[in-house]
Amino acid sequence: MSSDNELFHPVITLPDEIRKGRYARLVGLDEVKTRLRKEAAVLADPSVLARWASRHHPNVAADDQAFTLLRDRAPLILFAGDVGSGKSALAESFGCDLAEVLDIEVTLFRLKLTTRGTGHVGEMTALVGDAFATVIAEAKLGRSSSGKLRGVTVLVIDEADALVQSREATQMHHEDRAGVNAFLAGIDDIAGSGIPLLVVMCTNRLAALDPAVKRRAAAIFEFGRPNDGQRRKVLQNAFAGFDLTDETIDKLVLATGGRADGRPGYTYSDITQRLVPSVILAAYPDTAITADLLLAVAEDLQPTPPFDDRAAA
Amino acid sequence: MSSDNELFHPVITLPDEIRKGRYARLVGLDEVKTRLRKEAAVLADPSVLARWASRHHPNVAADDQAFTLLRDRAPLILFAGDVGSGKSALAESFGCDLAEVLDIEVTLFRLKLTTRGTGHVGEMTALVGDAFATVIAEAKLGRSSSGKLRGVTVLVIDEADALVQSREATQMHHEDRAGVNAFLAGIDDIAGSGIPLLVVMCTNRLAALDPAVKRRAAAIFEFGRPNDGQRRKVLQNAFAGFDLTDETIDKLVLATGGRADGRPGYTYSDITQRLVPSVILAAYPDTAITADLLLAVAEDLQPTPPFDDRAAA
Amino acid sequence: MSSDNELFHPVITLPDEIRKGRYARLVGLDEVKTRLRKEAAVLADPSVLARWASRHHPNVAADDQAFTLLRDRAPLILFAGDVGSGKSALAESFGCDLAEVLDIEVTLFRLKLTTRGTGHVGEMTALVGDAFATVIAEAKLGRSSSGKLRGVTVLVIDEADALVQSREATQMHHEDRAGVNAFLAGIDDIAGSGIPLLVVMCTNRLAALDPAVKRRAAAIFEFGRPNDGQRRKVLQNAFAGFDLTDETIDKLVLATGGRADGRPGYTYSDITQRLVPSVILAAYPDTAITADLLLAVAEDLQPTPPFDDRAAA
Amino acid sequence: MSSDNELFHPVITLPDEIRKGRYARLVGLDEVKTRLRKEAAVLADPSVLARWASRHHPNVAADDQAFTLLRDRAPLILFAGDVGSGKSALAESFGCDLAEVLDIEVTLFRLKLTTRGTGHVGEMTALVGDAFATVIAEAKLGRSSSGKLRGVTVLVIDEADALVQSREATQMHHEDRAGVNAFLAGIDDIAGSGIPLLVVMCTNRLAALDPAVKRRAAAIFEFGRPNDGQRRKVLQNAFAGFDLTDETIDKLVLATGGRADGRPGYTYSDITQRLVPSVILAAYPDTAITADLLLAVAEDLQPTPPFDDRAAA
Amino acid sequence: MSSDNELFHPVITLPDEIRKGRYARLVGLDEVKTRLRKEAAVLADPSVLARWASRHHPNVAADDQAFTLLRDRAPLILFAGDVGSGKSALAESFGCDLAEVLDIEVTLFRLKLTTRGTGHVGEMTALVGDAFATVIAEAKLGRSSSGKLRGVTVLVIDEADALVQSREATQMHHEDRAGVNAFLAGIDDIAGSGIPLLVVMCTNRLAALDPAVKRRAAAIFEFGRPNDGQRRKVLQNAFAGFDLTDETIDKLVLATGGRADGRPGYTYSDITQRLVPSVILAAYPDTAITADLLLAVAEDLQPTPPFDDRAAA
Amino acid sequence: MSSDNELFHPVITLPDEIRKGRYARLVGLDEVKTRLRKEAAVLADPSVLARWASRHHPNVAADDQAFTLLRDRAPLILFAGDVGSGKSALAESFGCDLAEVLDIEVTLFRLKLTTRGTGHVGEMTALVGDAFATVIAEAKLGRSSSGKLRGVTVLVIDEADALVQSREATQMHHEDRAGVNAFLAGIDDIAGSGIPLLVVMCTNRLAALDPAVKRRAAAIFEFGRPNDGQRRKVLQNAFAGFDLTDETIDKLVLATGGRADGRPGYTYSDITQRLVPSVILAAYPDTAITADLLLAVAEDLQPTPPFDDRAAA
Repeated sequence: MSSDNELFHPVITLPDEIRKGRYARLVGLDEVKTRLRKEAAVLADPSVLARWASRHHPNVAADDQAFTLLRDRAPLILFAGDVGSGKSALAESFGCDLAEVLDIEVTLFRLKLTTRGTGHVGEMTALVGDAFATVIAEAKLGRSSSGKLRGVTVLVIDEADALVQSREATQMHHEDRAGVNAFLAGIDDIAGSGIPLLVVMCTNRLAALDPAVKRRAAAIFEFGRPNDGQRRKVLQNAFAGFDLTDETIDKLVLATGGRADGRPGYTYSDITQRLVPSVILAAYPDTAITADLLLAVAEDLQPTPPFDDRAAA
Repeated sequence: MSSDNELFHPVITLPDEIRKGRYARLVGLDEVKTRLRKEAAVLADPSVLARWASRHHPNVAADDQAFTLLRDRAPLILFAGDVGSGKSALAESFGCDLAEVLDIEVTLFRLKLTTRGTGHVGEMTALVGDAFATVIAEAKLGRSSSGKLRGVTVLVIDEADALVQSREATQMHHEDRAGVNAFLAGIDDIAGSGIPLLVVMCTNRLAALDPAVKRRAAAIFEFGRPNDGQRRKVLQNAFAGFDLTDETIDKLVLATGGRADGRPGYTYSDITQRLVPSVILAAYPDTAITADLLLAVAEDLQPTPPFDDRAAA
Repeated sequence: MSSDNELFHPVITLPDEIRKGRYARLVGLDEVKTRLRKEAAVLADPSVLARWASRHHPNVAADDQAFTLLRDRAPLILFAGDVGSGKSALAESFGCDLAEVLDIEVTLFRLKLTTRGTGHVGEMTALVGDAFATVIAEAKLGRSSSGKLRGVTVLVIDEADALVQSREATQMHHEDRAGVNAFLAGIDDIAGSGIPLLVVMCTNRLAALDPAVKRRAAAIFEFGRPNDGQRRKVLQNAFAGFDLTDETIDKLVLATGGRADGRPGYTYSDITQRLVPSVILAAYPDTAITADLLLAVAEDLQPTPPFDDRAAA
Repeated sequence: MSSDNELFHPVITLPDEIRKGRYARLVGLDEVKTRLRKEAAVLADPSVLARWASRHHPNVAADDQAFTLLRDRAPLILFAGDVGSGKSALAESFGCDLAEVLDIEVTLFRLKLTTRGTGHVGEMTALVGDAFATVIAEAKLGRSSSGKLRGVTVLVIDEADALVQSREATQMHHEDRAGVNAFLAGIDDIAGSGIPLLVVMCTNRLAALDPAVKRRAAAIFEFGRPNDGQRRKVLQNAFAGFDLTDETIDKLVLATGGRADGRPGYTYSDITQRLVPSVILAAYPDTAITADLLLAVAEDLQPTPPFDDRAAA
Repeated sequence: MSSDNELFHPVITLPDEIRKGRYARLVGLDEVKTRLRKEAAVLADPSVLARWASRHHPNVAADDQAFTLLRDRAPLILFAGDVGSGKSALAESFGCDLAEVLDIEVTLFRLKLTTRGTGHVGEMTALVGDAFATVIAEAKLGRSSSGKLRGVTVLVIDEADALVQSREATQMHHEDRAGVNAFLAGIDDIAGSGIPLLVVMCTNRLAALDPAVKRRAAAIFEFGRPNDGQRRKVLQNAFAGFDLTDETIDKLVLATGGRADGRPGYTYSDITQRLVPSVILAAYPDTAITADLLLAVAEDLQPTPPFDDRAAA
Repeated sequence: MSSDNELFHPVITLPDEIRKGRYARLVGLDEVKTRLRKEAAVLADPSVLARWASRHHPNVAADDQAFTLLRDRAPLILFAGDVGSGKSALAESFGCDLAEVLDIEVTLFRLKLTTRGTGHVGEMTALVGDAFATVIAEAKLGRSSSGKLRGVTVLVIDEADALVQSREATQMHHEDRAGVNAFLAGIDDIAGSGIPLLVVMCTNRLAALDPAVKRRAAAIFEFGRPNDGQRRKVLQNAFAGFDLTDETIDKLVLATGGRADGRPGYTYSDITQRLVPSVILAAYPDTAITADLLLAVAEDLQPTPPFDDRAAA
């Protein structure tokens, strides 16, 4: 059996301060955040559903088919979207929120891409199998023998397309196809098991994921670039101390947005990691940050081009 | 000789409760279900045909050429269709029905994809040969020395295209082509043998199957997405306890159907594994499931895109 | 030297009853049947030509150049055509006819596809060489030391394109090219030798055969799907006992034919292996086969799509 | 060092009867035949040029630059043309003519395609080097120490494109490129050496030969399909004893020619190996060969399609 | 662990005279030069920002979010542009300027392309990891335990596209993708660490860099061919002693510029390494350099064609 | 370390008679010949430039930047052009001229193509490194410790594109890219070193050379097919003794030139190695060379088609 080191990045116990801060700073993702809480809640204690139903749908029995369907799904969430849209940051930090809301510890596993193995026959199948075995063993500890939730395990698979690329692809290797099958088997093993485990897959190549994976997803969230309101919020936070006028912020929101000529708007990270630092360095050491300077720098910077998924086109 | 473990998923004796339930829940597949019963019936006791003919076609002899042609066919059924259309579920569960109707045990073999082997010369040929030898040996036990049927064996080959991809393909390896031939040989061995064995191949890439395989199929069934009536039935079952009005169901049937803009309708599993759970989680914990909520969630969810078989285009 | 087992499917001595029946049932192939008889006749006793000439062309000498040319050709016949068109069945059964007409035994060798070997350098060359050596040794026994014919050997190479794909192909391996050369050498060895051996190659990819192979062919026969008359005959035979009216047969002939929308007609095996059995199962167990039922089933079945030889396009 | 067996087909000493006959039967290739004689003549005794010049160009010295240029060329002739055009037959038989005209023995080496080796680095280079060393050693024996010609060696490289494919090709392996260089080195070694050796390369892919090879060729002859007169001659020879009228031959010449719809005319071997035998078998055993029969068979046969050199397009 | 020799070209301590001269001669790159100074300055002593802010933005606290964002970025600068545009020269020489301005030593590491390894699984990942470990260890020495800056380390990755090609590419190997990930991990390790290290990547294939790399870049500078003013300066410097008239220089500036027909202008190195030497050799040994000669040579020389990045198109 | 035998063709000391003759016969290449002399002259004794400048540009100092630029270039000359254009002949023979003009010995190294190695990682890098080390060691001997020139070394790299193909190519191997880098390193080592070494690269695929190589070239010469005057000179030389009239030569010049229909003109070698010998053999043994014969032969011969560099298109 392969060691955990080969399969996962260092395992992290949440909440931790860094990720908690990141989670808080993620703007405009409330819908996803809410859903993740609910998924965790029903996984933590399925009886909450019966209690809810008894309140709102008195005719529904605790073993209603609808609940069965819900419980039998795979606890699999897909985050799709562009580089810099915050999907990876959310995947690695939402456990902090779960930990607080449910008052438990959340254990975060992050699958290494190397789980794809070296191409030897059966290796990827074995590695993927080992990875699920490890995570499931850990996750099972999250529920006491009495059924009470003690912890939730989150498995994050970043760059998921590298692992479960669509078997539709023309030139796919048999070994890769077998790996997709191993992954599907792992997911099917968890489905309906009641093990407190959430699997989150991130990809900027949603179209490249195997349909059988997408079919199993409880939810697929598409992360876009920030809209006007979201950019405004990020900009206001970043320049909070710099006394910018509302008008300047307005112009900056516009300057960082998409354009009629097809240029896309800024990503979250274009603003936080490139625009803000560049503006400071442009002013430093001799001048203040002015509206003109801000706009000039914004004009100059090019937003990260969208991921152009030629391979899946 | 390769061990059965390498070749097959765990062998299952039918009926079992889980698959029986699944079979019952499969909506809108009556034509296929009937045909499978008939195939099994004439395989179980070929003399039923003569008896039938004596009743309806008195001029036909028991050894009429038509009967010979029927008996000499391969007992091979193809299930083709999209992800989530229920074809695999039916393939693995119809044995429950046979078991009841014929009052026998049905043994279910499910071929592993790894039967394709590792690409070494002759390996796939050997593995496919072993697989057929194993299944045929088992199936022969299904008929007593007196000819009486004691059991039926079903061999399910899911993702069949991975095994018997069309030799038409431009860049096919010789080894794969040899594997197709081995498969054809296995099928030809059973044809006309009277062994109580049914082979069911499932694929979402019918176009990718070798013509020589399709030519041998006794029947090819194409599984589509559920039509209005089928979706209605699934929805009514799922929300049975939730007191939805007929009008709400009507709207939901519409909302989950295909659209003029080319968006396909929901698959069976889109409804059961994604729509129903998402609706519950959308309402939980504070509101009831209302018609508006149902329709909003349905509107939001994207049906699984159809499998787009570029490789066989 | 490779064992015969590696090179050939089990060797068969003709006539045997199964193949004799098949030969008889092959409808609409009289031209090919006649030619095969003639090829065998002149191979059996070349002096028949001189006798024929003396009757019809008194000026022609027994060693006329025309006879030399005929004798010096390779005894190679190509059967080209679609899946289910009966070419393989004819190739493996016409020996029964020869056996009767010439009153001899016919030995049937069927080359295994694995003769292409594993891609090692020189291996395919060696395997093809061995195969020809084996067949030629056997075939030589067919003529006594006095020159009298005791038997004819038939070598059938099915899926011939796999062995002698055109060297025109852009991405052909050197090893494959060498194998084509080995094949050409084998054919050239037989040409003009008077050994009672006929080589029949079957392919559904005539365009993919090497031009140098086609050039050597004494005759190339293209097998199509059955025309109206041929389908009528097959249908009448199959439903002989079922008292169908001529009108029903007429409609069935039409229903199984090609259509204006490009749908091809039924192949032979579409009729015998799919239509006839499906009709019986559709009627069984409760109803008789009626004209309506027949036509409904025929309407429902899709003829096997034609082999679409992309790789040779 | 590789054995000769690996490098060459069995070495043949000319004249022999079979090839002499073939040479005689090659129709319409007089220009090439004459040139080959002259090449051999000046190679046999370079002083014939001086003697010729003294007669026709008295001002030219025996060591004139023009003679130097002629002597310094590579003794390399290219035969290019379609399958069945007689180029290989001529390459392997013209030595019979040289032998007679010069009253010497001609040694015929035919390079095996396997000289391309197995793709290992340096192997093809070594094999090609060995081949040239062997042939040159043999060829040197053709001239006595006094300079008198005792024999001529002919090296025939059929399917030459397989060995010296153009280095222009986009996807050429380094090893192949090195092999072309080895070949060029071998040719350059002979150039100007006075060794009585002629190298003839045959190819149906002239466009695929490396330009550096073509540049070195003393002459390039393109072999086409027979024209009207050539087909007439072949047909007359073949049916000499059958009393065909001139009018019938005329029609046959027309029927075997190219057509306005792009169908090419018959190759030599289409006529000799397919048309003539097919006509005889069509008449045999009951009728005579008539004009109508001849034309019907000719109509029916398809000429070999031209080699379509996609790979070099 | 791999030795430094495998990973880096010889390590260089700046300033040195050669690179100092080169830095001085780089014309028209003032914007980049200034930015590099600033990046180094804030890396050297982050408190300079607080001091600047206190002067220009009194409301900004020292731990303002904007400063956090700036500090948390990766110290990664991308130089993109054509062959001969001076980007590599600047990357390897700007350390001389830092050394002077900050009065410290600058250690220059230049990554070898061979860091991509041999394609073995995990090797590239390990090599990239080793490289970052080495550079980071060295760079940490650049700050004393009291936090005072003692030196800055610069890591230059030339031909960066070879290392971190976009994972968007259709035919990318898994191993390469893993290498990109290793690189991203290395960059993320430095981000926000305060280690005095600058990473400069040079590429003429900006489009081929992975978006995740570009997203992390603090700044991306595109180096073009010199404009009129820049060419004039270079030409004046080069021909300083040759007494050219302003008019001649004007013409030369024009002659070395881009043209309406799409011919690009001269690169820096086209002027310094090709035009100037060619002019001297054209005049030597018998004539002086005249305006006509200059223009004739300039006319004759072809500017280096722009890098045409087909692979990333 | 690899032996010299692996890296180079036999080393040659110039002048030798054969190459001296060839150099003399090369028509129409005076510009290149002159430049090569000058390159060698300033390499032999850089002070000649100062002496020249003192005569023609009195204001220029001996250490003027222009001289520095000239000295710092790589001594790399590119010969580009078609097969048969004389570029290789010149590259291997111009050393004879240098030897005479400078009264020294010239040592000619010709790199073997096999320097590309076998594809093993690092091998090509090592081989290229060894080759440069060997040549540089030899070349250094060419200058005495007092700085006086004793000999010049010339390194000829024929088929240079095979070694330093552009890294722009879509499907280039990493190993090849590393080899280009090794080559660039070798060239950069010589640049500015004053070692009496000239590197000449020949290619018929200029477009396929890496831009970084082309950028380093001191000069790029494109060799075309001979123009009218050059063909006239070659023809006159070749047929000097045959008393052709001027009018005949005129016609011949025309007949061997390019045509309006796109047919290119004759290469040098088309005339010397194909036209002249063919004309003689056409006349031999019975007739004289006449104007008509000459023109008929010229009409018949096809000029070598231009190298069509698809791979670099």
